[in-house]
Amino acid sequence: MMKPFIHDDFLLSNETARMLYHEHASKLPIIDYHCHLSPAMIAADHRFADITELWLSGDHYKWRAMRANGVAEQYITGDASPREKFRKWAETVPYTMRNPLYHWTAMELKTAFGIDTPLTPETADEIFDECNRQLALPGMTARGLMKKYNVEVVCTTDDPIDTLEYHRQIAESGFEVKVFPAWRPDKAMAGAAPAVYNEYIGKLSAAAGIEIVDYFTLTDALQKRHDYFAQNGCTVADHGLSRVPWAPCDVEKANELFVKQLSGVALDSHEADMFNTRLLIDLCRMNARAGWVQQFHFGPMRNVNSRAFATLGPDTGFDTISDWKAAEAVASILNKLDADNLLAKTILYNINPADNTWVAAMPANFQDGVTPGKIQMGAAWWFNDQLSGMRAQMDALSVQGLLSRFVGMLTDSRSFVSYTRHDYFRRLLCDMLGHDVEAGLIPESQIKRVIGMVRDICYNNARNYFKF
Amino acid sequence: MMKPFIHDDFLLSNETARMLYHEHASKLPIIDYHCHLSPAMIAADHRFADITELWLSGDHYKWRAMRANGVAEQYITGDASPREKFRKWAETVPYTMRNPLYHWTAMELKTAFGIDTPLTPETADEIFDECNRQLALPGMTARGLMKKYNVEVVCTTDDPIDTLEYHRQIAESGFEVKVFPAWRPDKAMAGAAPAVYNEYIGKLSAAAGIEIVDYFTLTDALQKRHDYFAQNGCTVADHGLSRVPWAPCDVEKANELFVKQLSGVALDSHEADMFNTRLLIDLCRMNARAGWVQQFHFGPMRNVNSRAFATLGPDTGFDTISDWKAAEAVASILNKLDADNLLAKTILYNINPADNTWVAAMPANFQDGVTPGKIQMGAAWWFNDQLSGMRAQMDALSVQGLLSRFVGMLTDSRSFVSYTRHDYFRRLLCDMLGHDVEAGLIPESQIKRVIGMVRDICYNNARNYFKF
Amino acid sequence: MMKPFIHDDFLLSNETARMLYHEHASKLPIIDYHCHLSPAMIAADHRFADITELWLSGDHYKWRAMRANGVAEQYITGDASPREKFRKWAETVPYTMRNPLYHWTAMELKTAFGIDTPLTPETADEIFDECNRQLALPGMTARGLMKKYNVEVVCTTDDPIDTLEYHRQIAESGFEVKVFPAWRPDKAMAGAAPAVYNEYIGKLSAAAGIEIVDYFTLTDALQKRHDYFAQNGCTVADHGLSRVPWAPCDVEKANELFVKQLSGVALDSHEADMFNTRLLIDLCRMNARAGWVQQFHFGPMRNVNSRAFATLGPDTGFDTISDWKAAEAVASILNKLDADNLLAKTILYNINPADNTWVAAMPANFQDGVTPGKIQMGAAWWFNDQLSGMRAQMDALSVQGLLSRFVGMLTDSRSFVSYTRHDYFRRLLCDMLGHDVEAGLIPESQIKRVIGMVRDICYNNARNYFKF
Repeated sequence: MMKPFIHDDFLLSNETARMLYHEHASKLPIIDYHCHLSPAMIAADHRFADITELWLSGDHYKWRAMRANGVAEQYITGDASPREKFRKWAETVPYTMRNPLYHWTAMELKTAFGIDTPLTPETADEIFDECNRQLALPGMTARGLMKKYNVEVVCTTDDPIDTLEYHRQIAESGFEVKVFPAWRPDKAMAGAAPAVYNEYIGKLSAAAGIEIVDYFTLTDALQKRHDYFAQNGCTVADHGLSRVPWAPCDVEKANELFVKQLSGVALDSHEADMFNTRLLIDLCRMNARAGWVQQFHFGPMRNVNSRAFATLGPDTGFDTISDWKAAEAVASILNKLDADNLLAKTILYNINPADNTWVAAMPANFQDGVTPGKIQMGAAWWFNDQLSGMRAQMDALSVQGLLSRFVGMLTDSRSFVSYTRHDYFRRLLCDMLGHDVEAGLIPESQIKRVIGMVRDICYNNARNYFKF
Repeated sequence: MMKPFIHDDFLLSNETARMLYHEHASKLPIIDYHCHLSPAMIAADHRFADITELWLSGDHYKWRAMRANGVAEQYITGDASPREKFRKWAETVPYTMRNPLYHWTAMELKTAFGIDTPLTPETADEIFDECNRQLALPGMTARGLMKKYNVEVVCTTDDPIDTLEYHRQIAESGFEVKVFPAWRPDKAMAGAAPAVYNEYIGKLSAAAGIEIVDYFTLTDALQKRHDYFAQNGCTVADHGLSRVPWAPCDVEKANELFVKQLSGVALDSHEADMFNTRLLIDLCRMNARAGWVQQFHFGPMRNVNSRAFATLGPDTGFDTISDWKAAEAVASILNKLDADNLLAKTILYNINPADNTWVAAMPANFQDGVTPGKIQMGAAWWFNDQLSGMRAQMDALSVQGLLSRFVGMLTDSRSFVSYTRHDYFRRLLCDMLGHDVEAGLIPESQIKRVIGMVRDICYNNARNYFKF
Repeated sequence: MMKPFIHDDFLLSNETARMLYHEHASKLPIIDYHCHLSPAMIAADHRFADITELWLSGDHYKWRAMRANGVAEQYITGDASPREKFRKWAETVPYTMRNPLYHWTAMELKTAFGIDTPLTPETADEIFDECNRQLALPGMTARGLMKKYNVEVVCTTDDPIDTLEYHRQIAESGFEVKVFPAWRPDKAMAGAAPAVYNEYIGKLSAAAGIEIVDYFTLTDALQKRHDYFAQNGCTVADHGLSRVPWAPCDVEKANELFVKQLSGVALDSHEADMFNTRLLIDLCRMNARAGWVQQFHFGPMRNVNSRAFATLGPDTGFDTISDWKAAEAVASILNKLDADNLLAKTILYNINPADNTWVAAMPANFQDGVTPGKIQMGAAWWFNDQLSGMRAQMDALSVQGLLSRFVGMLTDSRSFVSYTRHDYFRRLLCDMLGHDVEAGLIPESQIKRVIGMVRDICYNNARNYFKF
């Protein structure tokens, strides 16, 4: 009998790697400190209608692969039936060899459903039916899947205007997995058309119970919501930055620009940079005062396909990697915050792997002499979430900083079965360290410290850093 | 006896790799969809005076290596004798270890001439004489070499003003290898001094039989030549872009700028960007309407050595790699064309490998739901044409897109023996996939699909995509 | 008994690698053509108070690692005792696995002190005491350590105002190791505040014995000091460039800008670029006329932490990697010098490894037809000084240029035990070439040439290039 594709030692190429993984990494719970799961689905313990809903309804990685394979939009985001959509995905899978989707697909079928059969057009219907059969069983709900994967904590991604009612329901329900909100105030940053922006400001006013008429009431309202998030267990902020702004701006100017937008007049690109520089700094100060961790995700160029944006809207697989410069802006923001002693714990995520080295080198400039890894490079993000991307990120971090202080992997996902990415990461990490030990790059005499590193990166560091 | 350097299993490090190569890749014909061969030499079935003409008369890779090795220009582009030039190259070869030239040299001596002896100063005269002896034999002409290497199709690179008479002669001669023109309208783009530019416009007028007096007659003339190329079998356009322009410009403004140049006044850099943005869009529309494939080659900084440019002219080895940004411009051009439903099949080639990841990620934003791999990343180009460059390009393509839909290798060469680069590429591809299979990254059960991928990338994909 | 971590075959993974290293590379003297050793300490044959002075008093690599590990500044640059500082470093070491510091630490303990014990908190005191005991022995002084490591030549880094008295003392003392000054005129470039800049100009006036009142007397003074350096054995210039300037500027404009600064008015950013472009060109002309080698070190973003700069000053570990563009400026400077036939031998060092490929491709555009490798890419610099960085630099150089002409490694260090970096580099080089030979990428029949390459890169090339 042929060995199954996803077997116990998948990716583990030597004895040390296998020891590190099987005896240590594989046994640790998952802390998923940044994801896009729906709190409503967790609160309701959502049951999935079928594998198409679970797998294909929100996964723009799969959508992009199908598009590259010539699949029509009808079968991707359109009105084709779940079975038809699944078949199109199954047609595409054999064309994804060497893409992480090929591994994720096999790993998710194996770990969630116990299926070893490769997904191909020939096996599509059989697998579709079997998955759906299992999805009707007890334990295959949103919550059941989270427990199945040994998840301990997740942080969702939430807007300041969110009521957090689902987070409260989850907490009150006694669900074993901790589900915390994370603060993502991107919509308060300038960028959208004034009508869209001001509609959001109206909602923010209502959520905060503060009439927002100028920059001062804007930041009051945001602070009030920030406090509310903190009261609801939030300890993490997340700032999505396409271009990182750096155009210093005093509060009077920021106010003038905000009032201009409020009056319906769009800011030009330099004005938007000024406003955003100021607001970002003020938001970061809130993070520091609250003792939170802040994450900067920078570099994606969003909605580059106008036709798709008009029909499908944002977050549908039409964001891409930019080559915009950011080093000076990132350094300037961190420096400004540090100078005022208001620099929170910060994680830097770059979308373009060509930036890995400077991003890995940046944190050592802004540490505080107390917290190990206070400022750090984040896990391989989005387009980099594959073996080569994770390896490149960890290699850069290793040589420019301290891999040992890395808070490790996250899913950044909308899916309840994407926890396999933690497993994928752990296998790779153990393989890299196992290789180094057996190649004599790390002395065997220090194997206990290597084990400690694995356990820290997979679990302890995140727990200590985020203080969940 | 020592095994020859270039042996059957060169670069093939495991059983699967050897099976993929020997049973599949090595047997497929070559489709060389982008090269710089001289149609006149093919039409005349040119016989080479000696190996120096064949090897050294137009190869700026070798020239650059000789320059780096301290060889005087007299022996490179100057008036030294063929034997003297060859000796200088032979002196340089041992210094090229780890450079692709070291492999290409050995592979070309082996495959074209059956020579296993390494080229060194000691063996130079012997090899020079033996190659020249063979070059006088039947079958060692331009056409003979193309047949020897199992070439099925080549696309040359041609200016809109070209009469294509040699392509017609070749077609009429019944030559087994199909030789198609490719459309490269770079000289119609602004950039040269007005005198040079307007001289070209005069020739274009004459070729098209249309008096070019404004932007409208310019595009009429280009369209007429585009039609003429199509009638002569052309299905491929090629756009050489140093900096990718993106400065939207309506047709009235483009006309004003064209008329300004026509009057002898140079455009400033922003005006040139505007004009080029508009003209590129209009040229791309012609490609879409004709159902062609278009290629964007971007990023080289050309003629950086003024002294050499003044004495030797362009394309003599003084172009280099820039670090100019291009992601936003490329996205904007593709988006503009897509929005008007006039986006042809497009291949993106970047000169700087630091751009590999964003280039590999770009195509999925602009697919059409019908054609697999319609927009795709092109093969490792120019300065990247070596094992590490090809590997990096295929790794980026694999994780950001679909390697399986890749149209594969091309020579981009002026030489009739550079088909070994296809062999080099095929060996590497088979080795990469062979490695992945034996490392358990691709399941052995799917070996048929792996074989299919190899055959597709080496041959089928190009045939289907270009519709030769 | 467990094999020691740093053993004879450390990093050498096959037979060919071991032969290349043990029979060749390891036996060659060290030419360290760029470092920051203190000439005063060499002149005085300084004896180190303890290992903390030797290791931790000036090493911003270690400082940055300690900061990333949460160590307070008191134990890094502050007033903690030598033993306390050493303990903090020992606490940090186990957290540096996969960082080059982990290897350097073990290699330096082994080669300087014969210590195999890994440095950890548990072994800290024992190692501290043993090192200090040895540092009191004969031969463990500044000069003794240089001889111990088989150093033949070092070039320090010196300001034009330096009297070079220590270099003269060293030369007169008959010290076996040649210690030459290198010319680093960075402070004459615009950038600092006028008060700081003009204070420096005053010192330069005094050193040259020329009253500097305008651009003409500035360059006269610099030329006089340049001559003085040449008389004292200097053959190497070093230009530290954060952003590479390129804003052509005639001498009248340069003069106007210099006089403006002299009057206490700061230049704006474009003015500074103009002035620096002109002065850099004029400085490079001095280098060419003197027959020197010039080095361009570009890309660091300096002193990014204002708070640390205010308390600790420059060169304390708060410089970082930028993503600034430089290709066009570098090409323009080289072209300008080449056009005037005043281009000295030049080595290009980039701080951001994303620039490796364009930097490796640049030199072939500006060779002179006489000197092999006249213009060349420099060794992996600063943040790139580790196995992966050196490998990336040599891989880029190999495929874009001629690795065989590479002048090899340097320490760039303030430490008298950092010569292990040459050993680290040599082991890696031998391993890379050993791998290539055994993988069939270089023919075994050419092993003599491979040996020659190793000997050239480790020693002969530098000796021939710098003409020490």
